[in-house]
Amino acid sequence: MHLQYRFLYIMASLFYFACPVHAQQSDSLAVRKLVNEIMTNGAAYENLRQLCSFGPRLSGSSGAENAVQLTQKMLRDAGADTTWLQPCKVTHWVRGNPEKGYLETSDGIRHELRLSALGNSVGSGDKPVCAELVEVTSFSQLKELGEKKLRGRIVFFNLAMDPTKIHTFRAYGESGVGRRSGPSQAARYGAIGVIVRSLASNVDPYPHTGATMYNDSFPKIPAVAISTEDAEWAHRQLQAGRSLHACFSSGAMIYDDVMSANVIGEIRGSLYPEEIITVGGHLDSWDLGQGAHDDGAGCVQAIEIIRTFKALGIHPKRTIRAVMFMNEENGTKGAKAYLDSAIARREKHLFALESDDGGFSPRGFFFEVPDPVFQKISRWKPLLMEYGLYEFALGGSGSDIGYLEKIGTNLAGLNTDSQRYFDVHHAATDRFEAVSRRELHLGAAAMIALVWLVSEYGL
Amino acid sequence: MHLQYRFLYIMASLFYFACPVHAQQSDSLAVRKLVNEIMTNGAAYENLRQLCSFGPRLSGSSGAENAVQLTQKMLRDAGADTTWLQPCKVTHWVRGNPEKGYLETSDGIRHELRLSALGNSVGSGDKPVCAELVEVTSFSQLKELGEKKLRGRIVFFNLAMDPTKIHTFRAYGESGVGRRSGPSQAARYGAIGVIVRSLASNVDPYPHTGATMYNDSFPKIPAVAISTEDAEWAHRQLQAGRSLHACFSSGAMIYDDVMSANVIGEIRGSLYPEEIITVGGHLDSWDLGQGAHDDGAGCVQAIEIIRTFKALGIHPKRTIRAVMFMNEENGTKGAKAYLDSAIARREKHLFALESDDGGFSPRGFFFEVPDPVFQKISRWKPLLMEYGLYEFALGGSGSDIGYLEKIGTNLAGLNTDSQRYFDVHHAATDRFEAVSRRELHLGAAAMIALVWLVSEYGL
Repeated sequence: MHLQYRFLYIMASLFYFACPVHAQQSDSLAVRKLVNEIMTNGAAYENLRQLCSFGPRLSGSSGAENAVQLTQKMLRDAGADTTWLQPCKVTHWVRGNPEKGYLETSDGIRHELRLSALGNSVGSGDKPVCAELVEVTSFSQLKELGEKKLRGRIVFFNLAMDPTKIHTFRAYGESGVGRRSGPSQAARYGAIGVIVRSLASNVDPYPHTGATMYNDSFPKIPAVAISTEDAEWAHRQLQAGRSLHACFSSGAMIYDDVMSANVIGEIRGSLYPEEIITVGGHLDSWDLGQGAHDDGAGCVQAIEIIRTFKALGIHPKRTIRAVMFMNEENGTKGAKAYLDSAIARREKHLFALESDDGGFSPRGFFFEVPDPVFQKISRWKPLLMEYGLYEFALGGSGSDIGYLEKIGTNLAGLNTDSQRYFDVHHAATDRFEAVSRRELHLGAAAMIALVWLVSEYGL
Repeated sequence: MHLQYRFLYIMASLFYFACPVHAQQSDSLAVRKLVNEIMTNGAAYENLRQLCSFGPRLSGSSGAENAVQLTQKMLRDAGADTTWLQPCKVTHWVRGNPEKGYLETSDGIRHELRLSALGNSVGSGDKPVCAELVEVTSFSQLKELGEKKLRGRIVFFNLAMDPTKIHTFRAYGESGVGRRSGPSQAARYGAIGVIVRSLASNVDPYPHTGATMYNDSFPKIPAVAISTEDAEWAHRQLQAGRSLHACFSSGAMIYDDVMSANVIGEIRGSLYPEEIITVGGHLDSWDLGQGAHDDGAGCVQAIEIIRTFKALGIHPKRTIRAVMFMNEENGTKGAKAYLDSAIARREKHLFALESDDGGFSPRGFFFEVPDPVFQKISRWKPLLMEYGLYEFALGGSGSDIGYLEKIGTNLAGLNTDSQRYFDVHHAATDRFEAVSRRELHLGAAAMIALVWLVSEYGL
């Protein structure tokens, strides 16, 4: 099998321009061989099991540092020509004492909240934040209420994800504004605390955390996410005309940045070693679950690409670099360090592909590339459709590789079937058991197919 | 919203032929409205929860009869104009006493098996079947071994599902031959029992059952499925040169057929009530799990279609009939009764759509239709692509509606992303918790979109 493949590979190289039909056939066989190796012998799932067994990997935590060591070893075991750690200072936010909170109706019904401090938020200090709860569903409503209605209150951003958006990330992007900017927007009008509805597709009992970004112009006030069940409860009470008194405590603290690292392993290109193809995910995760889908999946898929090339004895023409970025969730400081290093070393970054939409069945790719490059890539679509990869669209690629846009890198993101993603995203339910082996491996297969084509033919 | 929709709907009817662009736009809005209703207010998931809470629904069991009553009530609650039970005699196979079995190596290592009698198989009687185990991976290998090597032995069909087949049903179809025909093929050469490797995508500890079909020319011998973990263990022992002594008992019994029913509910068409569109799944399930994906999903999706038309006040031009077929798993006698009734009543069955590939994200449809009909349907593809429905292909539709081919019905099957299906298929793991609400509802949305287009424009 190996020799036969080699033969076809050489044939493809010789006749690609002279004989496009043969090239197409041999490309198809080459892609099939890569995919079959992953679907048959893929190690990504077992690597993910191991990675998840170490617990969460919040930037600056010991879990994250353990994961750095573990994934460097995985890259070595996968057969990377070289592996290294790329130092970076990362955000060091700590949850501290477990959050507590409740709501109480004007007629004395007390409802305990399932809640989580928002990432990068400040804590409540020695005593809880307690005040009347004011529900809003938009920033314009917030502005309308103004300081008169909001000063000294706790603002409740009840922005449900739109269930009719089939691409769930669009719903996430829209409703996520409350979590991302809500605390500072509320503080602008004198609010003393913020409660956001968790960003979850369904009504469930789990708080889903995520980063908030304070605006330095306004006071930094404590902010928590409550479960969608709790949010629905609160909404019903307020709709029924009952006022709600809210109380919550948060032990969250931001410390000075600490040293951490991106984990990198590469296969040196056989013909154009100076042209780098980055394929990656982010190694850090939130601390409530195991970060299995977000983004252990992307990490083990990147490692799988190294393993597969090596296991099949295929030498890509261009350099393939698997990168596990640190600190995507609450700082993207690993990504910044990667860009800085690329600039300092005058590296030529041809292409980068990120997997950070969960370890689900792949549907295609989003590209951030110039039109002629998109045209070229689109011609490969017939090779990939038999693996269910139908969606080739222009759009966002990934938070980490996004930085490489500054040096003109062609970018892509794996587009997955994300219907289940916001059941588990940033919550305690993002565990190894939520990942399907075949779906995870099919994602890695989609990635290696695209990476191989770019490595063979450039862009 | 409702009036606006009505207006567009009338516009579409008036200008469809004169003004295809407007028609396309109004169709798009109409489909969007149907999809949004399901994604926002869909009841299929809660109906599935209720259906699964009643336990398994093997044909002839009290569970199946309870489900008949329950789903008829669900159809009524969904607003069906009429509901009825269509009597049919169904296979009555009973598992009886729990199966037991073990393997023992020549050097005395005993390995307990996790096993399940195959559906419709005979039991082992008063004492277990015990004999030397002979592994085969094909019928040609079986033939080669012949009576000399097989008489008095237990045959082990170790046909693993091919992990490289992206459409998992293809792998299932290929490897399933051992379960379906293996027992009779082994009995032909004098074997006294059969053990098959479970049809599962992954190596797991669960036996996956399913029907076998005896050939009346050969003795009926007991047959069980063992977990893929056990199959791997057995294979390793035999590869290492150890012989294996197998012993298993099965209390399975086939009784005379018993009366049961298909459950039917319909909305009478406003313009062409005599033209029937059947949309369905099968109500019976295996007895190891809850039959959530197989095929509770298809049943609640069919009910959801009735609910959605009624909730939106949309009157389809043609008659929409939701059918929950009984006895698909081990007899398809409900499907036969449905065909017989259609013939006896001279019903005109324009189109039938079955959902029996699990309650996963939809990918498109398989059609069994003449070429001109396929061309017509393919022109609707642009309306459906935004819901992730890319795959319009000719191919198998569904076991139940397949019977309607005899009266020239145009057939279709919902094509789902089935990467996770054979983790749970016919096993104890096919439980409500394995179903995603959004995926299930998106499947129902895909179905109603196609059903509505057929109802509007015919075929």
